Amino acid sequence: MEENNFIELAKKAKYASKKAASLSTELKNAALLNIAKNLKENSDKIFEANKKDLSEAQILIDKGELKQSVFNRLKLDENKMRDMIQGIIDISNLEDPVGKTLLKRQLDDGLILSKISCPIGVLGIIFEARPDVISQISALAIKSSNAVILKGGKESVNTNKEIMRVIQEALDKTEGFPKNILTQVFSRDDVKYMLSQDKYIDLIIPRGGNSLVKFIKENTKIPVLGHADGICHIFVDESADIDKAKRIVIDAKTQYPSACNAVETLLIHQNFPNKEELLASLKNAGVELIFTPESWHVEYSDKILAVKEVSSLEEAIEHINEFSSGHTEAIITEDLKNAKIFMNAVDSAGVYHNVSTRFADGFRYGFGAEVGISTNKTHARGPVGLEGLTIYKYNIEGNGDIVKDYVDGLKKFNHRNLG
Amino acid sequence: MEENNFIELAKKAKYASKKAASLSTELKNAALLNIAKNLKENSDKIFEANKKDLSEAQILIDKGELKQSVFNRLKLDENKMRDMIQGIIDISNLEDPVGKTLLKRQLDDGLILSKISCPIGVLGIIFEARPDVISQISALAIKSSNAVILKGGKESVNTNKEIMRVIQEALDKTEGFPKNILTQVFSRDDVKYMLSQDKYIDLIIPRGGNSLVKFIKENTKIPVLGHADGICHIFVDESADIDKAKRIVIDAKTQYPSACNAVETLLIHQNFPNKEELLASLKNAGVELIFTPESWHVEYSDKILAVKEVSSLEEAIEHINEFSSGHTEAIITEDLKNAKIFMNAVDSAGVYHNVSTRFADGFRYGFGAEVGISTNKTHARGPVGLEGLTIYKYNIEGNGDIVKDYVDGLKKFNHRNLG
Repeated sequence: MEENNFIELAKKAKYASKKAASLSTELKNAALLNIAKNLKENSDKIFEANKKDLSEAQILIDKGELKQSVFNRLKLDENKMRDMIQGIIDISNLEDPVGKTLLKRQLDDGLILSKISCPIGVLGIIFEARPDVISQISALAIKSSNAVILKGGKESVNTNKEIMRVIQEALDKTEGFPKNILTQVFSRDDVKYMLSQDKYIDLIIPRGGNSLVKFIKENTKIPVLGHADGICHIFVDESADIDKAKRIVIDAKTQYPSACNAVETLLIHQNFPNKEELLASLKNAGVELIFTPESWHVEYSDKILAVKEVSSLEEAIEHINEFSSGHTEAIITEDLKNAKIFMNAVDSAGVYHNVSTRFADGFRYGFGAEVGISTNKTHARGPVGLEGLTIYKYNIEGNGDIVKDYVDGLKKFNHRNLG
Repeated sequence: MEENNFIELAKKAKYASKKAASLSTELKNAALLNIAKNLKENSDKIFEANKKDLSEAQILIDKGELKQSVFNRLKLDENKMRDMIQGIIDISNLEDPVGKTLLKRQLDDGLILSKISCPIGVLGIIFEARPDVISQISALAIKSSNAVILKGGKESVNTNKEIMRVIQEALDKTEGFPKNILTQVFSRDDVKYMLSQDKYIDLIIPRGGNSLVKFIKENTKIPVLGHADGICHIFVDESADIDKAKRIVIDAKTQYPSACNAVETLLIHQNFPNKEELLASLKNAGVELIFTPESWHVEYSDKILAVKEVSSLEEAIEHINEFSSGHTEAIITEDLKNAKIFMNAVDSAGVYHNVSTRFADGFRYGFGAEVGISTNKTHARGPVGLEGLTIYKYNIEGNGDIVKDYVDGLKKFNHRNLG
């Protein structure tokens, strides 16, 4: 696409986003159910498109130009399709995040301030090989009244196109649903244009590996919601229960080692009496242990764990605040006072006590759907659900009220929260 | 300052911010009251430093190199000093924005998720000639447990240095208060380094004119909280009450024309019967009216008002969503349905009904203190109080809980909000 064309497209998305802001919950849910239905009815066509992508991927894998893991993520089967469709139905059942009254306050008699949740505007989504992301993100955008420009991985281009065609067809059939809420783009240049259109795009959400997220964060002034690294820590305190420690550390390292919320560094208090038993249990579980300082910076995403002995709770906190990527950390301790200090002083999106770091997840938190996990320090942090796709506006209702009356002392504010 | 030294300073601020996160409300308030006391006791020294700045400014004004308005903003008198000190005492009386439980949810029996408000980290504040900003921002940062690096205008350098010395002296006297929470830098190079240190600085807040804010937004990847333009609109609907219309538009344009929430464009419905009366009243109030399309883009900050006739509510909404800077807009109408459509469809931080746009202000909203007004679409929008200087973290308390049990189906989540 030429840059001018992209700008035109982004402008249309912005315009559509203003229309989307006023959509009723009923219309949005009707659109979602139409999408679910149309995906079901067109599954065969989507599988066909997916086969095309798979056979092209296989050629690249045979040449050694693509990893086998990409093939697996790319592949849509009946199960994934069913999950995809159910995911959309689930989102239709979630509470509408738009139009909620977050604050209602009387400023003076008959002068009422309301803080109302509203959509952000235009989301730019850049994702890698998993084509099921398209329907999930589209559904989240629709439910939160945002417009979205999607750029998928080139490996899944046929599948993405077909899924988007089916989604658009469903939206066209939904009477009253505005045009241009969803747009798909395809080229590397489009990504470049997207990252530069801070006039029309309000938030970028990357879904993919570290290098994708890092590249995006370094190349845009648009706010980016996500996380690059997931260097999570577990601190086993002096008073930790050895059985809990074993259960939790093994779960956090081995249950799904490539997850961003898997533990990467284990800190052990020097006075913890069962250190050897803990390390032996990890080795038995197939975990390789590394004891060098270089390992403190590494996200292994594998059954490899950095281990460091610390002399105090304070040293553990300082180590984490220095080396963590701000994702999720846990303390294992029977000392409630230490747990409280740790949870207060550690500056990460998730800080847990006697729990596996693997719980950091929107579904496990009960958010119903997840856009991703953010390590940002502004807007949204941790697992982000529909709420993270909203902001708010302030409404005031009055009856001819002017500021001069208050500046001149004729009237006085009597701030009082209502409802 | 050399860039290396700035980085060292930013690193120390980051470290300090982690300490600040755990400060008790009592200690923070004690620090604030110590600052207020010390400012009172050192007023004379501050006035002396201010005189130095004023006489240097006067030389530049005589040479025509500085505007008289800068002199006025620069000048500290007894009144401003009293307000400054009272402002700090007021902030000590506000609710602590840190450590609030925003959500408490049972994920499963004995597995409790809490969403707790916490500070953002390190704020970079860049402000122009008003030296009273230093104490205000320092107080807001302390109350919200953030560290801050301040860069003031060069015209007020002596005043800023003396105020900061007095503040630091008060903090040094406050037992247990960590070092390096507040740092001041002075050069243009320091601004450049500040904008590039996204590793250590979490949020930039510019306080100053449009060109300062625009420059900053264009030259950093750190989130910026603020607004460049304030192109506010009032739409006078067909059914508007002429008396309310006159009161509100005159207030919004003339009560303080250089304020960012002053109206800049007046849209009038073509069927509004009292158009001539409204325009005549504006002229009587000394307002110059402009009827050219070029004026729709301009923030006059003066008694000048763009006027446009529109044929419908929809045209008014579309005009605003295209030309507004997203700050504050109002509709004047006796038609509640139209008011509702307008407030829903207009995408600005403040959208009012029968009220002057000049109400867009943190004190008027009852926030007690204001960092500034944001036109961002993420994090914080509209007048930003202490809450805008916080984010949150998720805590989970458990008892050896692991994800494997849930993946294997041995356990099931029973999400339920508590308290």
